[in-house]
Amino acid sequence: MKKKAIPEVVIDRLPRYYRYFRSQLGQREKVSSRELADVLSTSASQVRLDLSYFGGFGLQGYGYNVEELYTRIGEILGIDQEQYYIIIGAGRLGRALADFPVFREVGFTLRAIFDNDPQVVGSRIGGVQVSDVAQLAGFVRNGQAGFAIITTPPEAAQGVADILCQNGIKGILNFAALDLNVSPGVAVSNIHLTDRLLALSYWIKEQRKA
Amino acid sequence: MKKKAIPEVVIDRLPRYYRYFRSQLGQREKVSSRELADVLSTSASQVRLDLSYFGGFGLQGYGYNVEELYTRIGEILGIDQEQYYIIIGAGRLGRALADFPVFREVGFTLRAIFDNDPQVVGSRIGGVQVSDVAQLAGFVRNGQAGFAIITTPPEAAQGVADILCQNGIKGILNFAALDLNVSPGVAVSNIHLTDRLLALSYWIKEQRKA
Repeated sequence: MKKKAIPEVVIDRLPRYYRYFRSQLGQREKVSSRELADVLSTSASQVRLDLSYFGGFGLQGYGYNVEELYTRIGEILGIDQEQYYIIIGAGRLGRALADFPVFREVGFTLRAIFDNDPQVVGSRIGGVQVSDVAQLAGFVRNGQAGFAIITTPPEAAQGVADILCQNGIKGILNFAALDLNVSPGVAVSNIHLTDRLLALSYWIKEQRKA
Repeated sequence: MKKKAIPEVVIDRLPRYYRYFRSQLGQREKVSSRELADVLSTSASQVRLDLSYFGGFGLQGYGYNVEELYTRIGEILGIDQEQYYIIIGAGRLGRALADFPVFREVGFTLRAIFDNDPQVVGSRIGGVQVSDVAQLAGFVRNGQAGFAIITTPPEAAQGVADILCQNGIKGILNFAALDLNVSPGVAVSNIHLTDRLLALSYWIKEQRKA
């Protein structure tokens, strides 16, 4: 009864609200929907609609309480508890994400990093030793993984995803330039950097024409 | 007259078509809308609609010519010519993107990388020497930049974006965790890695409940 389906676009905006409330913590008590609208480049009515999905904490003429919203959105995002992740692929991108300060700041902790290159296995990245990918299945099966970030070359990514899914992973953030097939019940978020660059190239071309 | 406004969602899908046609080059002559729909996890009618924006090359009962579509979509994306980019922020993420093989494969060439850390300026990354950020304005003004990738800490990003805009940049790919204000006519694409991780966290929590 009390469950209201939250549109995906609203979920996608939640981290931006979270980020903003976080930046205002300890600096001020409340913000108005108008200010939030400016920060998110949207309208005040959209802000009120977005936040109404989470209980409508806004008070007419008062605005939103920063600490309350920060806490509540953190709970909704599931980051009120520490989150763990693993990385598969200790190349340049994997190494960058293994030691990404912003991830740590919002409570994401790297548990392990896997690679198939004997030259790389055993080296340390961001305080974590690189494991052989042969140990991936057991690690995930034991529930130690949290969620997984795939930064392998595209041709290896589906095989890695299969191992993760077969052993009960709940979520994957995929940077490999292909669209993964995963089991039902596994959340996947694809970040295709090259695609974003290609789409940007289109928009630049359009701007030149204008 | 001949210009038909292409919805942004279609542009966002174009790189995926491009990537698929590219993978099939030299291997086969044609693909059907059904196959493309499978690859893109969409419907055959959506594929036909998407590709109709670019002149509708599909022939009933034949499908789409791989080489023709690859070439045409490359032109539309503006990558039939070599593209140049610069990176501002030679931290771990900047270094990873400076030497990202997939970018090179689709014709994006790194021209320069800038940082404000005297310890880093002068070092080489992916064959390019790191320049002092003090030289950024002149470099962009001379039209040498192409587009820019920002991988600085959030607190430095807006200042960098201002320099880029004031000196005529046409496009920015922003990895800093804030929403940039840019001049009209500058295309911006934000890749907020932490936001994606936070949204994924939400979906994982929802899957656990299901």
